[in-house]
Amino acid sequence: MNQFFRVRSLEEVFALIDEFPCLADEEVPVQDACLRTLAQTIKACEDIPGFRRSTMDGYAVAARATYGASDSNPAWLGLTGGVAMGEVPDFTLNYGQAARISTGGMLPEGADSVVMIEHADPVGEDALEVYKSVAPMQHVIERGEDFAADETILTPGTLIRPQEAGLAAALGVSRLKVFKRPRVGILSTGDEVVPIDQTPGMGEIRDINSYTLAGLVQEAGAEPVLYGIVKDDEQALFRAVEKGVKETDMLMISGGSSVGVRDFTIDTFARLENTEMKVHGISISPGKPTILAKSGRKPVWGLPGHVVSAMVVFKIVVMPFLKKIQGRSDILTANLKIPAVLSRNIVSAQGRRDFIRIRFRKKENTLFAEPVLGKSGLIRTMVHAHGLLEISENLEGIEKNTRVEIIPL
Amino acid sequence: MNQFFRVRSLEEVFALIDEFPCLADEEVPVQDACLRTLAQTIKACEDIPGFRRSTMDGYAVAARATYGASDSNPAWLGLTGGVAMGEVPDFTLNYGQAARISTGGMLPEGADSVVMIEHADPVGEDALEVYKSVAPMQHVIERGEDFAADETILTPGTLIRPQEAGLAAALGVSRLKVFKRPRVGILSTGDEVVPIDQTPGMGEIRDINSYTLAGLVQEAGAEPVLYGIVKDDEQALFRAVEKGVKETDMLMISGGSSVGVRDFTIDTFARLENTEMKVHGISISPGKPTILAKSGRKPVWGLPGHVVSAMVVFKIVVMPFLKKIQGRSDILTANLKIPAVLSRNIVSAQGRRDFIRIRFRKKENTLFAEPVLGKSGLIRTMVHAHGLLEISENLEGIEKNTRVEIIPL
Repeated sequence: MNQFFRVRSLEEVFALIDEFPCLADEEVPVQDACLRTLAQTIKACEDIPGFRRSTMDGYAVAARATYGASDSNPAWLGLTGGVAMGEVPDFTLNYGQAARISTGGMLPEGADSVVMIEHADPVGEDALEVYKSVAPMQHVIERGEDFAADETILTPGTLIRPQEAGLAAALGVSRLKVFKRPRVGILSTGDEVVPIDQTPGMGEIRDINSYTLAGLVQEAGAEPVLYGIVKDDEQALFRAVEKGVKETDMLMISGGSSVGVRDFTIDTFARLENTEMKVHGISISPGKPTILAKSGRKPVWGLPGHVVSAMVVFKIVVMPFLKKIQGRSDILTANLKIPAVLSRNIVSAQGRRDFIRIRFRKKENTLFAEPVLGKSGLIRTMVHAHGLLEISENLEGIEKNTRVEIIPL
Repeated sequence: MNQFFRVRSLEEVFALIDEFPCLADEEVPVQDACLRTLAQTIKACEDIPGFRRSTMDGYAVAARATYGASDSNPAWLGLTGGVAMGEVPDFTLNYGQAARISTGGMLPEGADSVVMIEHADPVGEDALEVYKSVAPMQHVIERGEDFAADETILTPGTLIRPQEAGLAAALGVSRLKVFKRPRVGILSTGDEVVPIDQTPGMGEIRDINSYTLAGLVQEAGAEPVLYGIVKDDEQALFRAVEKGVKETDMLMISGGSSVGVRDFTIDTFARLENTEMKVHGISISPGKPTILAKSGRKPVWGLPGHVVSAMVVFKIVVMPFLKKIQGRSDILTANLKIPAVLSRNIVSAQGRRDFIRIRFRKKENTLFAEPVLGKSGLIRTMVHAHGLLEISENLEGIEKNTRVEIIPL
């Protein structure tokens, strides 16, 4: 596999996302659906709420009967029964009457608003003084005001947060169709890499990447599958990759940053059945030596060996593909970037997109983005970093005090 | 329990956090530690890396031998053996010699820097032309540069993100002591509330809060325990609360927004053994009717019935307590607030801290915070919202185009 591959721009890499299909869907109880991706359309099959509801503790009234009421000139209403929670009021309110009601209670026929408890005083058993007028529909939620019957509420591809789970509950959808949680295989390579419970000899280091990448995969709502370490041996690597591709929905091989192993990785991908090389090199820093192949329907990645580079590539390059196979509809509208002010000049090479680790620092109400110093091989720099600053290939750097946008880490 | 309770400020409520102790700790494998809170100090027991390491593919050299090298005037070095990955080089480099090395390889004795592969060309078997000089320590990481032996790296109370997990792996800590994941009980109350798989009759609504709160608890790294719905019955509520307090580390009762049930809730808390009322009413909106009691060592909450109010109270008030029992050290340094520009005037009542739901909108490189319209009883408003804007009790509002900071949702 010595075919020449041109280094791709990030945009060219993202253009490949559509070649990878979403996983199948499955049904889960709504309480297990948080952080999953919705795979169905959810419509309101009824008006929510299904009746005119009070949003305050107080008195249901016809608003018109309170017009002009004030502390010095209260409105005088007849006090009739109260509304029991969860029940349909068994009476109709006549004009000039008021009925006790609690938050969430159903307004009786004839009432269009609620006077707050602190703006009225009962006088004896049968009368009420109201000190403040209300407008029609004040302190009530109208039938169907939250959602009207047949309205489309959520569409496939939506990330389910607590509020979407609550919304499904409100609509009585107790089981949700969601996309399967991707299983993501993680493989470390390199003769110098040893398991973490082993003391590395001189020239060796512990397998940092497996654990860092596993954390990132979990954070992304997917399930990491650790395949451990493969030494720099072409046959062993091929067998491990073949198994990993078979057993998971996406495979990431990290390490292989030495020239020889990088070649192994490419040769291995090329030998896999039904597999196409897609990317060999991306014009970003860190992360240039990233490799992407498509094995059947599955993305297979060769990530840089430096843990910091691997993390950046995961966040910037791999995440959109992982979102795609998870069925997410917001694949490239990245998570919110955070506006900040650059605290010092940054120099960058033209013709290459740089991702600079930064740390937030707040000073006198301004949020500063402070570049984290230290070589990219140092895991310490990632522990200190809060985010990444992207510098376009057209810039030679960014000046101090420029307003920038930070990708959160 | 008719004792008078003064409405508390948020600061007064937060001053109570220290009365609630952290949970016990337990040991978990590092791959299961993400999003948990560290309960131990982690020191480097050795230098990381343990040897002088190359950060590039290229040639190990003594930097001095390359000084003055350029395209037109290359330095001419002798090419000796290569460094095998994971091994101690079995030779010493003499001044004026170069040795092939891969990223991560150990520099041989006598080398202090690495010339990148693209800045040199082998000439035959034994010689190398170098086109660019390097400085001492260029493209290498020195022994102990990431972490020096005995350095304290992580302290108790740290949230373990993927990078902290990787760091532990780098140090050979394969099992981490973390604080136990809190079990958080969730109880809905109200005669009007029905299970989500039931069609509500007129005057009834489905149990939205249990599912929304369960999602929030999960998001916070804790385990929700759903106790379902208790009708407005003092005995039933007491039994359910007693059971919940016994079985979990924190209990949240939501609903009870009607006057009668709120009284039940307070009476129930008062009847619990070894329980002290701490807060009955907070001067925030939404969320004023929030109740906090301390039962033994455990926080027990009465949350508002409106789902939107309950979510806001969870995020703003409950979260710091949940972080405390999880052992987090960053309890009140809330998560990063996001700077934005307010898109329209907001009116607020003085003497009360308001939390306004807002939605981000980007326009010509400016991030605007747009208030979400709609009554607080509408779950739709939470689905649309990206964050909350806090308005101090001293303000009557905030003007359009003011720079504000948004608490992400």
